[in-house]
Amino acid sequence: MKLDLARELSQTASTKIVLCVLDGLGGLARSSSGKTELEEANIPNLDQLAAESELGATMPVGVGITPGSGPGHLALFGYDPLEFDIGRGVLEATGIEFQLGPNDVAARGNFCTLDSNGEIIDRRAGRIESSHSEKIVELLRTIQIEGVDLYVEPVREHRFVLVLRGDGLGESVSTTDPQIEGAKPIPAQGRDPASKKTAEYVNSFVSAANDLLFESGEKQANGLILRGFAKVPLLPQLDDIWKLRCAALAVYPMYRGLASLAGMETLACPGGMAEQLAVARDRWNDFDYFFVHYKKTDAAGEDGDFEAKIKALEEFDKTIPAIRELGADVLMIAGDHSTPAVLAGHSWHPVPFLINSANTSLGEACGFSENSCRLGSLGTFSAKEVLPLAMAHAGRLQKYGA
Amino acid sequence: MKLDLARELSQTASTKIVLCVLDGLGGLARSSSGKTELEEANIPNLDQLAAESELGATMPVGVGITPGSGPGHLALFGYDPLEFDIGRGVLEATGIEFQLGPNDVAARGNFCTLDSNGEIIDRRAGRIESSHSEKIVELLRTIQIEGVDLYVEPVREHRFVLVLRGDGLGESVSTTDPQIEGAKPIPAQGRDPASKKTAEYVNSFVSAANDLLFESGEKQANGLILRGFAKVPLLPQLDDIWKLRCAALAVYPMYRGLASLAGMETLACPGGMAEQLAVARDRWNDFDYFFVHYKKTDAAGEDGDFEAKIKALEEFDKTIPAIRELGADVLMIAGDHSTPAVLAGHSWHPVPFLINSANTSLGEACGFSENSCRLGSLGTFSAKEVLPLAMAHAGRLQKYGA
Repeated sequence: MKLDLARELSQTASTKIVLCVLDGLGGLARSSSGKTELEEANIPNLDQLAAESELGATMPVGVGITPGSGPGHLALFGYDPLEFDIGRGVLEATGIEFQLGPNDVAARGNFCTLDSNGEIIDRRAGRIESSHSEKIVELLRTIQIEGVDLYVEPVREHRFVLVLRGDGLGESVSTTDPQIEGAKPIPAQGRDPASKKTAEYVNSFVSAANDLLFESGEKQANGLILRGFAKVPLLPQLDDIWKLRCAALAVYPMYRGLASLAGMETLACPGGMAEQLAVARDRWNDFDYFFVHYKKTDAAGEDGDFEAKIKALEEFDKTIPAIRELGADVLMIAGDHSTPAVLAGHSWHPVPFLINSANTSLGEACGFSENSCRLGSLGTFSAKEVLPLAMAHAGRLQKYGA
Repeated sequence: MKLDLARELSQTASTKIVLCVLDGLGGLARSSSGKTELEEANIPNLDQLAAESELGATMPVGVGITPGSGPGHLALFGYDPLEFDIGRGVLEATGIEFQLGPNDVAARGNFCTLDSNGEIIDRRAGRIESSHSEKIVELLRTIQIEGVDLYVEPVREHRFVLVLRGDGLGESVSTTDPQIEGAKPIPAQGRDPASKKTAEYVNSFVSAANDLLFESGEKQANGLILRGFAKVPLLPQLDDIWKLRCAALAVYPMYRGLASLAGMETLACPGGMAEQLAVARDRWNDFDYFFVHYKKTDAAGEDGDFEAKIKALEEFDKTIPAIRELGADVLMIAGDHSTPAVLAGHSWHPVPFLINSANTSLGEACGFSENSCRLGSLGTFSAKEVLPLAMAHAGRLQKYGA
């Protein structure tokens, strides 16, 4: 649904919506069993819920498109991920809970190893330890450039974030990463006057950093490359569009950050699902919509660990009774994308989805899996329609036309 | 299909297309049986037809969007209902067979009850009887305002239509309805110069009406509110786009009006299905496309009467032999939207659909229901593709590209 129409049709109500996102939920069959992670897992509570729900498979972005976590979540929050893009730099800054302002340009940085000619011989500086990286970051923080404020923040291992804060900075800045080893880092270039200004500051920073690293005698992480220059996108806010007071219950900073960009209030719940649900219970009357994020499925999939993903699914399954006890009018189980363990990474495959409410159009009961979902009454549909669908089930959308 | 492409590809042929629209066809299971209205109904003729047809589920407007009758029908007639919008005033005027011209702005009116401060205490004036309403309308017809012709037409109970006819009248006029009781009707406002002119006439009319009603001593319907100001939309005409001579066989004025806006000829058939089909037989050679409208399914659904909806379906089922005897090359059974009896109103759920022709790609025979249709060979698809699909089955679309 176009956001203008959504703004026009949405209305307030006393109903509650809960969206549980199992990160990387979708999987693929392994050859030993011919079954997917969901099909092998013992998930009686999800199977029972599926029998009482409408099933479907969500397409996060489009056929064949493997989404990152940003687009995967934005789609579930009702945004067209092809229209609203969150740059890598912003996502990375969000992931470390760096508060980006509207005048900030953020970039993802990698420390790398340069040879004596200044050519890259290791794009990740041998994945130096975080403690090592933090010391280098301390050094780079001494760099001052007139006209701009600089923030250098460690992430993990060889990764860091660079934030430039100043008036009139553009974000259309090319990467300094030559993408291959054996080449030198490339000077940044800006596409428009504002971005040329950013690029100039970036190149001054890189040059100063190289000098400092050379002087310090650092051998392993003696260079850096930057990419994903981006400003905070101006996302239309969920409360404004859908008249929903939204809460995010997520442990990991990046998902909290994404939710926050969409206008959700992020509630503190570092302890995992039990605490996430306890906070939802405590704050039940303060919000209309609760986004609950579960990370373990994706982590196991990324590791290529089929067994661990089964275990993550079974662990989530045990929380279903507590989720149902919240008493939401509309309950959804969804994924931001597939992360099949057999691929050890994100994939483009549609993602199992279920929605449960008093207005559920029932199909046949055959458990919660990739196959049962795509044969469900919702078929395969665009993930950005998940929120409008939930709004309809919640009685929060007016009729369109007379 | 985009209408430009439709205009380019469509060709004349001797084939006949019949579209039967069961208003509010789609339903939901009731908990006592776990079955929908269609699943409980005894509909042997529809089941047999389904076994010989392609099945699918039509999405009237979009996921989660509950359509009114206007958008629901426009989609089945091949228009994108998000592009072509028919205002409430036009639909209401159409429903009483008021012939709107291109310079007319129509609005839906409610008589209401005002207290001595002019505040609304009943937005529907106690649903006064139609005969009472007609007398008030007679009184309001004496109002004359220089520069514009006014038409006041009774609808039913407290409802009426106001039509303003004059050059250069705009339709972007705000409602005078404060939406709540305890507030005064709001003066109309226009968004642009042409609409400001309309608003001025509207406010003069309301003021004169209030004076007349006060003088007449009317207590119950002593005020009025207006909304849905609209002009007749300029719909591309079906004969021009699709090279089809189209006839509408509908009993209720609103559906006749909708068909007429799309360029169909509306044939008189006040007596219901038997007469609708008799007229189709009589005029078989004069048209290529027949739209047959059946209202009872929606009326029963709106009343929340599951049994009555079953009965309406069974009654329609008995007309199937006569429909098939017409000998159409392409026969479709469709709905403009779902009206599940358990919701007692329109809903967003996809609607059962079948198409039968000599070119039918058969699926498995499992009757005509929400579930069998969505598992059919057409899957869930946009209702605005129904007409192009029929054109293809009718051999009325040329190949695209060489």
